[in-house]
Amino acid sequence: MRDVFNLEADRVPTHWYNILADLPFEVPVPRPASSRNGAGSNGANGGAANGSDADGGQAMLQPQLPLSMYKQSIGRTRYVEIPEPVRAEYQRWRPTPLYRASRLEKALDTPAHIYYKYEGTSPSGSHKINTALAQAYYYSRSGVKEMVTGTGAGQWGSALSMACHPYDMACTVFMVRSSYEQKPYRGTLMRLNGARVITSPSEETEVGRAALRADPDHPGSLGIANAEAIEYANARKGARFSIGSGENHVLLHQTVIGEEALLQMKLAGEFPDVVIGAMGAGSNFAGITFPFYREALTENPATRFLAVEPDACPKMTRGSYLMDHTDYSGVTPVVKMYTLGHRFTAYHIHAGGLRYHGAAPIVSAMYDNDLVEAISYGQNRVLESGAAFAKAEGLVPAPESAHAVTAAIEEAVKAREEKTERVILFGLSGHGLLDLSAYESYMAGNLVDVVPTDEEIQASLRPLIESS
Amino acid sequence: MRDVFNLEADRVPTHWYNILADLPFEVPVPRPASSRNGAGSNGANGGAANGSDADGGQAMLQPQLPLSMYKQSIGRTRYVEIPEPVRAEYQRWRPTPLYRASRLEKALDTPAHIYYKYEGTSPSGSHKINTALAQAYYYSRSGVKEMVTGTGAGQWGSALSMACHPYDMACTVFMVRSSYEQKPYRGTLMRLNGARVITSPSEETEVGRAALRADPDHPGSLGIANAEAIEYANARKGARFSIGSGENHVLLHQTVIGEEALLQMKLAGEFPDVVIGAMGAGSNFAGITFPFYREALTENPATRFLAVEPDACPKMTRGSYLMDHTDYSGVTPVVKMYTLGHRFTAYHIHAGGLRYHGAAPIVSAMYDNDLVEAISYGQNRVLESGAAFAKAEGLVPAPESAHAVTAAIEEAVKAREEKTERVILFGLSGHGLLDLSAYESYMAGNLVDVVPTDEEIQASLRPLIESS
Repeated sequence: MRDVFNLEADRVPTHWYNILADLPFEVPVPRPASSRNGAGSNGANGGAANGSDADGGQAMLQPQLPLSMYKQSIGRTRYVEIPEPVRAEYQRWRPTPLYRASRLEKALDTPAHIYYKYEGTSPSGSHKINTALAQAYYYSRSGVKEMVTGTGAGQWGSALSMACHPYDMACTVFMVRSSYEQKPYRGTLMRLNGARVITSPSEETEVGRAALRADPDHPGSLGIANAEAIEYANARKGARFSIGSGENHVLLHQTVIGEEALLQMKLAGEFPDVVIGAMGAGSNFAGITFPFYREALTENPATRFLAVEPDACPKMTRGSYLMDHTDYSGVTPVVKMYTLGHRFTAYHIHAGGLRYHGAAPIVSAMYDNDLVEAISYGQNRVLESGAAFAKAEGLVPAPESAHAVTAAIEEAVKAREEKTERVILFGLSGHGLLDLSAYESYMAGNLVDVVPTDEEIQASLRPLIESS
Repeated sequence: MRDVFNLEADRVPTHWYNILADLPFEVPVPRPASSRNGAGSNGANGGAANGSDADGGQAMLQPQLPLSMYKQSIGRTRYVEIPEPVRAEYQRWRPTPLYRASRLEKALDTPAHIYYKYEGTSPSGSHKINTALAQAYYYSRSGVKEMVTGTGAGQWGSALSMACHPYDMACTVFMVRSSYEQKPYRGTLMRLNGARVITSPSEETEVGRAALRADPDHPGSLGIANAEAIEYANARKGARFSIGSGENHVLLHQTVIGEEALLQMKLAGEFPDVVIGAMGAGSNFAGITFPFYREALTENPATRFLAVEPDACPKMTRGSYLMDHTDYSGVTPVVKMYTLGHRFTAYHIHAGGLRYHGAAPIVSAMYDNDLVEAISYGQNRVLESGAAFAKAEGLVPAPESAHAVTAAIEEAVKAREEKTERVILFGLSGHGLLDLSAYESYMAGNLVDVVPTDEEIQASLRPLIESS
């Protein structure tokens, strides 16, 4: 039995896959933010954000996307060619490995076959760099000299700082102060990669200064960090704000993961009965599942697609399908998505990358049409699964990725109980080497499971429902 | 221009390379420790160590090595077949990538071609697991149920804990307390991989208890940790003490690195003029250089082999070629090697893996016969080079590996000054993701360069010279 399914470098996909070509329905498109949707955007975050809001979110934000990149992600062209320079970058570490978790299977005594696609071998340690490199390429071609972004846990900031190298672009990252202090090495990593890292709130922007006036010890938030990044980018010639979460083009870029996994599952001689991905905004989930959705139409129509979110941020399992902003400040266009409300602030969990309030519009539409399932778990169970996986397979999953591990284990246990064979594939989106404190807390019994109440979720959604 | 040279999984070497077959001289073999060589072994470390010493080190230590493994590494058989289960484990992540550092070349404006072989994609994050897996296999086959070791910085302990999985062996690691407190996540990683991690000195052994009696806050040392591991293993049925540094069989196992790199340099169409490796005890250096030594005899006899050590532990550049113990306690057989004396304690540097007092017997003999060169650098310069490399190439080198980076940069700068082409290959033995504190200290200007005085080195060597 062979446990690893490698591809040669020339098998790195030549095209991204645009799932819009194959969905049997229209996915609602973003529409400009109205000032009403910005309602509630006040206090520390208000300043620059509301000012821009008055211009209309569309006018403000869409021109920041290079046209070539934007067009690809709203059309129905099934395959979008990966520019050769981007593919050459991918080839520095792609194809990533696909493994069969045979030791985990043995430990679980399950008849299920468990496979995982591992993105942790990338330079940034996760899948994020797949879109960071593509975005850096397109922005660079459109004349941009500096990429600006906000980052919470730091995975996105690390990826973007690395992606700017090949194009000699500067990179400026506003990192949430409390995260920076909790994970100082993420900041070190970004600086090593040439980025300027600014703890947020900062003195560099009106938004930041307002927050610091209100509270000199302000811990920051991703909302403020992104608002600072937008203000900062708008004020600098040749600078652009970039995000790497649930936008259509981001999902598109991540499909290299699933395209490779398709070829690797062919090498294994199996087609999955269920494909599982952790769910933040949706880029990792889309990356591993979308190409399998396409092939399942002919290969195995019964294949299920399972998104796994944290109990602390249950946008799909407990949110509503509404028009909402993708950012906390309300400066971005509104899109229809499963959301907890853009002002929802999830309790702290170690899987910081899954604390996003909404699900990507495409994934949301698929969920609404029953093409995707969702489930949520608490972090103690998730880290227990991550630890069991690490012990069996010798790889430590990021806390985000451990959500997918948990669902894979649950599916495998069900297969054992039902005495059925089942082929399970999950995306292991990144390693946990910079998150070992999470496992330390889990092993020490110090982890708290935090779940929002129904009242909290309703309160967060009320302004959206009232304005729609 | 292509920057990455990948091999398919079926190109993972089938054989390790035994350089003893091709060296034009005999390498001195270990001889039993005499009680005189144990002189100076007193105080906290004394207990069990001296007691064992009285039996003769040979009698005590050699039987701990499985005979099959031991025989391979003293014979002159050129190629040693890699057992299929070990090769299957290697194939989980090998072949590792070989890159051309074209962005670093550009940053240095050098006509040199710089290549690096990257071992950081392994499950443990460094080359150490190449021998850990082989040792676990051989020990398991000889009936061992538990592997026991001491670890300082934790790279070796991490690798061994992972290697024990496939063979269902327990793993017990004595980790130097001060290192454990400095790098707690290394301990987390080992525990996640199922190891029992004991901070040393501990209450578990006579050696540990003696140390704690002398100083309840004893910070520990690798010498004490290994002495504890030896005592602990000796007292437990089915347990064996294992080490992963300069022994012949360890060097042998690491040659998979160079064998792959040979094939990859052929893909690149070049043969190196200089091959560079960081020098701890020598396993990383041997891994990247030995196969090139063999091929250079016909391909490019002028190829140089450069070992890079820290100023803080200059065993080759400032040590003496003498019979010495490989361990601090003096319980191991004595071997002829370049050494600073087995009681030499290097000042703290972030490259903890290079703080070993001696050079592997084979590397020492090659150095003595002018087949190998050596150079040393201070840690500020090393981390400056590591940071420059990270910025250019997007990979953070471990502080140990950054020593090789420094020499590669120096060679490339010389090539620029001399206006000559030069093909440089170096081994990037591991990533620095668990060592970002070192880079943080460097960037903050907090790093001190510490160098032993001539007097300190002479004082450390005097007992050896007097006893020889």
